[in-house]
Amino acid sequence: MNRRDLLTLSSAGAIGALASTSAFSQLVPKTASSGQTTHQYDVFELRLEGPASGNPYLDCTLAATFTLGNRSVTVDGFYDGGTTYKIRFMPDTPGQWNYTVTTNFATSVRSGEMTCLPAQHGAHGPVRVANGHHFSHADGTPYFPFGTTCYAWTHQGDTLEEQTLASLKASPFNKIRMCLFPKSYQYNHNEPVFYPFARPAGTTLTQPGDITRFDPAYWAHLEQRLAQLRDLNIQADLILFHPYDRWGFASMPAEADDRYVRYLVARLAAFSNVWWSLANEFDLMKSKSTTDFTRLLRLVQQVDPYQHLRSIHYSKYMYDYGSLLVTHASLQTYEFAKAAEWLAEWRKPVVFDEAMYEGNLNSRWGNLSGEEMTRRFWLGVIAGCYVTHGETFFPQPGSAPEDVIWWAKGGTLHGTSPARIGFLRTLLESIAPHGLEAAAEPYYLHATSNSAILYYFDFHQPAEYEVPLGDGVYTAQVVDPWAMTTTSLPGTFTGKAKLPLPGKPYSALLFRHANPG
Amino acid sequence: MNRRDLLTLSSAGAIGALASTSAFSQLVPKTASSGQTTHQYDVFELRLEGPASGNPYLDCTLAATFTLGNRSVTVDGFYDGGTTYKIRFMPDTPGQWNYTVTTNFATSVRSGEMTCLPAQHGAHGPVRVANGHHFSHADGTPYFPFGTTCYAWTHQGDTLEEQTLASLKASPFNKIRMCLFPKSYQYNHNEPVFYPFARPAGTTLTQPGDITRFDPAYWAHLEQRLAQLRDLNIQADLILFHPYDRWGFASMPAEADDRYVRYLVARLAAFSNVWWSLANEFDLMKSKSTTDFTRLLRLVQQVDPYQHLRSIHYSKYMYDYGSLLVTHASLQTYEFAKAAEWLAEWRKPVVFDEAMYEGNLNSRWGNLSGEEMTRRFWLGVIAGCYVTHGETFFPQPGSAPEDVIWWAKGGTLHGTSPARIGFLRTLLESIAPHGLEAAAEPYYLHATSNSAILYYFDFHQPAEYEVPLGDGVYTAQVVDPWAMTTTSLPGTFTGKAKLPLPGKPYSALLFRHANPG
Repeated sequence: MNRRDLLTLSSAGAIGALASTSAFSQLVPKTASSGQTTHQYDVFELRLEGPASGNPYLDCTLAATFTLGNRSVTVDGFYDGGTTYKIRFMPDTPGQWNYTVTTNFATSVRSGEMTCLPAQHGAHGPVRVANGHHFSHADGTPYFPFGTTCYAWTHQGDTLEEQTLASLKASPFNKIRMCLFPKSYQYNHNEPVFYPFARPAGTTLTQPGDITRFDPAYWAHLEQRLAQLRDLNIQADLILFHPYDRWGFASMPAEADDRYVRYLVARLAAFSNVWWSLANEFDLMKSKSTTDFTRLLRLVQQVDPYQHLRSIHYSKYMYDYGSLLVTHASLQTYEFAKAAEWLAEWRKPVVFDEAMYEGNLNSRWGNLSGEEMTRRFWLGVIAGCYVTHGETFFPQPGSAPEDVIWWAKGGTLHGTSPARIGFLRTLLESIAPHGLEAAAEPYYLHATSNSAILYYFDFHQPAEYEVPLGDGVYTAQVVDPWAMTTTSLPGTFTGKAKLPLPGKPYSALLFRHANPG
Repeated sequence: MNRRDLLTLSSAGAIGALASTSAFSQLVPKTASSGQTTHQYDVFELRLEGPASGNPYLDCTLAATFTLGNRSVTVDGFYDGGTTYKIRFMPDTPGQWNYTVTTNFATSVRSGEMTCLPAQHGAHGPVRVANGHHFSHADGTPYFPFGTTCYAWTHQGDTLEEQTLASLKASPFNKIRMCLFPKSYQYNHNEPVFYPFARPAGTTLTQPGDITRFDPAYWAHLEQRLAQLRDLNIQADLILFHPYDRWGFASMPAEADDRYVRYLVARLAAFSNVWWSLANEFDLMKSKSTTDFTRLLRLVQQVDPYQHLRSIHYSKYMYDYGSLLVTHASLQTYEFAKAAEWLAEWRKPVVFDEAMYEGNLNSRWGNLSGEEMTRRFWLGVIAGCYVTHGETFFPQPGSAPEDVIWWAKGGTLHGTSPARIGFLRTLLESIAPHGLEAAAEPYYLHATSNSAILYYFDFHQPAEYEVPLGDGVYTAQVVDPWAMTTTSLPGTFTGKAKLPLPGKPYSALLFRHANPG
């Protein structure tokens, strides 16, 4: 997992020795001694010294403009406590970059050079919208989101967080929905280890702390986790605001929200694997209006030099996903039959980010069978969209600390759907490098790619089916999404081809071009 | 099954010996010799002689007015071939009825008396709308439609038709959707045994025959089947028009349609178990408009002395079920989530008459698993509505004649859903004499009756659930709709009661008042 550097310490002589207490100290790159060098899509970090007096979070501004040929990218820096200021940059192009620093305070670092080497193996860059309804990495590598949900996993302490990372590594998931603020909700009553803001003496458990001062330890910890996710090829779908709050993070004034957004973008945007989800269930946040979130989306759009994916998640009242402020839809619904309409109207990817969870909780959204969770992934994919997993089993007595449920805290996975979701992901990646598009005919659910046609029969169980294949010549496989098997049918098929089927529900049928061009 | 007389031959002396070639001859009532007597809800029949010349179907009219005290009911008679004319009447009240016959031809029968005895055991009279969204027989006995579908079963000949009747007798079904006209469709290519209209020499297989003359043999055969259904306590949901036609029955001129409607109502309305379904998939009938069906519904409303249940079934474009011309909605959909809205808007019962069929055909509507068919019955019932079954398995090789599929021709049932549908019917009848009303809360699906609360968890699988029971005191049973078991939980429950549940999907939970008033 150390296939790339987390941070490239640069200008080390100029910054001098830093008394770092952050988790970064565990991750000091092996190439620190190589100087002003980084790799494409990695984080290049400048460290500057500056004033510690007053409130640098409010008083001090810094930025750097990186140029390569005629191109320039300006990134904001941030105060990191003590006398430390940082500027992070993720170069997307190899070559010799020059940079110029501007601050409103005295600093010895004003300009320099950085050599960007080609991406290290496994680093494909940020995920972008591609092919209309789909995604790819910046280098063109297809990316199909098969996400999961661990809202508060970075607030649980190292033991559980490392268990979560181990579970993710063994799972099929390549995206995780996670909240920056800690969470207060059923099964979520513990205090977090770190708080985003400084907590002066006297701060109570129902106060956010000093919302004019961030706590560098919180952010360093979060960044450690983001880097670990990135090295697992997992996109961090960061939820910036959410309603499940007892500290006051959900009801800060607008200027504090804006400062928080600017700060987190300055710190985190250089991580190639971040996505911005402005809120979870924004419509349940009583202290904010839709207009507030539109303002915040616009702010993120304005300050993010990399234009990471942006969306916002609702509970009941959908955000206007036609807006150019969101790059994709992040839905809470299982109305897969409406997907075609939404795709046509919004002309961007649609992710069913909450289609309920596998589990057995006493909550309507938290007790799907593994079979139903699996079915929903298939329904989403066959509609040309994507689906996100979550798991909400009551903790097994004696087997884990009280109330450790994957959907909130991470830990270990117990359900039957992840293996099947992995099977689907592998299948999709093998047949649809540019994504699947739902077919227009309102008959059996099916979708097509350049090289394949995939039918999903849902609750239908035909004993045979005459498939209108047209002029193409195809091989055919019967797919069992639950048994995770594919069974080839002999011969090839073309025109109106009648095929025998298993005669049981939830089967699929895959056609591949017999002679792909 | 001979618990009541099919027909009471009356005025036998006046009519004289009839050369009957109809199937009725098999069913001549044992009480024929008792004279002018019948039972409540049975068919009382007057036979008259009249002209055989010209075209009596067009030329001759006859009717009778039956009076009991200050009440009078006028029923139309019909020509039955040869010199035979008949008038049928179903008395709904015991007592001494007087009748007066009017004709436009000479006949010896002008008036008489009939004694109506109380209903024989098992005869409860026609089904009516009751309690808003539900049904009951005329005598107040609750009726919950658990129907099935055998569109063309009366067109298959005696061997298969008697097999169908035996299958129905052993089944849980108490309503059958069936077409008067023969059917031409996939798996339905055989000619019928009987045609509704006379077929003069030279009539081809794509002609309806002489649409000004009915064929009494067809009608006598149909009436035999209706009587047999009635004696099995099965409602005959008669479909008067349908689009699956190669003979021209679907495209007759309006005056022929009207004459057909008047004739069939005169013949069939005295059967207590008939319902009028003006059409199957009316919106697929290219030769008729919605206005035509509104006219035909109004005609049935006008000529039916008993106001049997009336509806009309669509394929894609819903009829206006808010219209007073229909007594209940006959839907083709499985959008059970919309039921509450429809019930509130239409204020009448809603029957999901086609929610797809259990089977394995190569047709989207014909290959549900038994589990899914069962689930749809539960979803309908828990929404305060009703659902109709159908079965569409490919014929087992060697086990039945080619293309004998229950949904069209009857025969035998092969699916796994009928037993479960029977279990639900028995359960519903035991808890909800006035029907179930869906609860308003949009949480888990549940419905209430005067004496019980029934939850259905669908794809949810909570390991426990806190039920808001309010002030009532209830016993509780966990219901397994598939295993067809009920398991009592110890004790009683009231207020907010947390109950353990099986933690598997498609479970139900039944609360009964512990001390029913």
